[in-house]
Amino acid sequence: MKKPGILLVISGPSGAGKGTLAKALISRHSNIELSISATTRDVRPGEKAGETYYYINKEEFLEKVTQGLFLEYATVYDNYYGTPRDKVLEALDKEVDVILEIDIQGAMQVKKNYPDAVFVFVVPPSLEILKERIICRDREPLEEIEKRLQEVKKELSYIGEYDYVVVNDEIQDAVDQMECIIKAEKCKSTRRFISFEEKGE
Amino acid sequence: MKKPGILLVISGPSGAGKGTLAKALISRHSNIELSISATTRDVRPGEKAGETYYYINKEEFLEKVTQGLFLEYATVYDNYYGTPRDKVLEALDKEVDVILEIDIQGAMQVKKNYPDAVFVFVVPPSLEILKERIICRDREPLEEIEKRLQEVKKELSYIGEYDYVVVNDEIQDAVDQMECIIKAEKCKSTRRFISFEEKGE
Repeated sequence: MKKPGILLVISGPSGAGKGTLAKALISRHSNIELSISATTRDVRPGEKAGETYYYINKEEFLEKVTQGLFLEYATVYDNYYGTPRDKVLEALDKEVDVILEIDIQGAMQVKKNYPDAVFVFVVPPSLEILKERIICRDREPLEEIEKRLQEVKKELSYIGEYDYVVVNDEIQDAVDQMECIIKAEKCKSTRRFISFEEKGE
Repeated sequence: MKKPGILLVISGPSGAGKGTLAKALISRHSNIELSISATTRDVRPGEKAGETYYYINKEEFLEKVTQGLFLEYATVYDNYYGTPRDKVLEALDKEVDVILEIDIQGAMQVKKNYPDAVFVFVVPPSLEILKERIICRDREPLEEIEKRLQEVKKELSYIGEYDYVVVNDEIQDAVDQMECIIKAEKCKSTRRFISFEEKGE
């Protein structure tokens, strides 16, 4: 009896700690993987095809788009980036949970194309703390930081589109919460109904 | 900032281990309590008012029914049993999670009267194992056991009305799953949205 994996879509403002959270999860669980995007941009030194990205040309990319083979895609500086549906589904089918760290626009595309995904919005404990984190990390001029905080406020209005909100105060607590979200989702009656019937009958 | 508790409604066939699960949860968490029912039946030796039950007379009970003061109620052998709405809400308001172990009919009433509750259906790993458990525990005639198993099959058709299904194979795993369900539910964007806004702004 198969228990397909869960696609976890993680969004949240820069500085909320999504990356750290995702890394902590995959390092602790051999059955959790990061989704690997396809891109049309060139390979950079140190990158590895099929690990950092799947590298394909624009023609191929656009053909896949028209065939609906991406869970989401976007253009950044003339290059395309997308999440290959087949790679994700293959992993889920092998009972692997897949983490997709992505912006809100991408997440909304996934919601449309794969509504079974679980959507998690990661937030810092407060806007003040986020400000401190951005200042310490990025050392940008205050004006730039204020602009980013305005952006964050706008992003927060999308929280309602997500299933869960993880407040990343202490990273260990946030990891615990993510682990529980995955475990609880696997207990959802909508995901589990069939499995009991199969075993029980 | 308050984080109201969660009302956990637990149903499932007799022999699934709901009681053991509920006891394990309250013994491990000081902020999880069992709901105490009101009843019109007499106090029995060893019982304590306000601990085993709240004892009230039929007139009082029926008045409360007409005032909508029960989350659910039922009649058993001429006596009434009900879950007092005010006691449950008081506990939730004190950030205590409340467990209500109840049959499907009661659970469906709670769903109508308090849709914010979380509904968990506890099942044994298989009907075969349930049969073994009932045989070992209750030592009833086989005919009686078969009748109960037919009843259980009927009950299983209600799984879709519940949010989660916990398969109670190893009790420790089942307790872990329940704990994760509570933790994950507290991360739900519908429950958490306001709290971040309050802190963040």
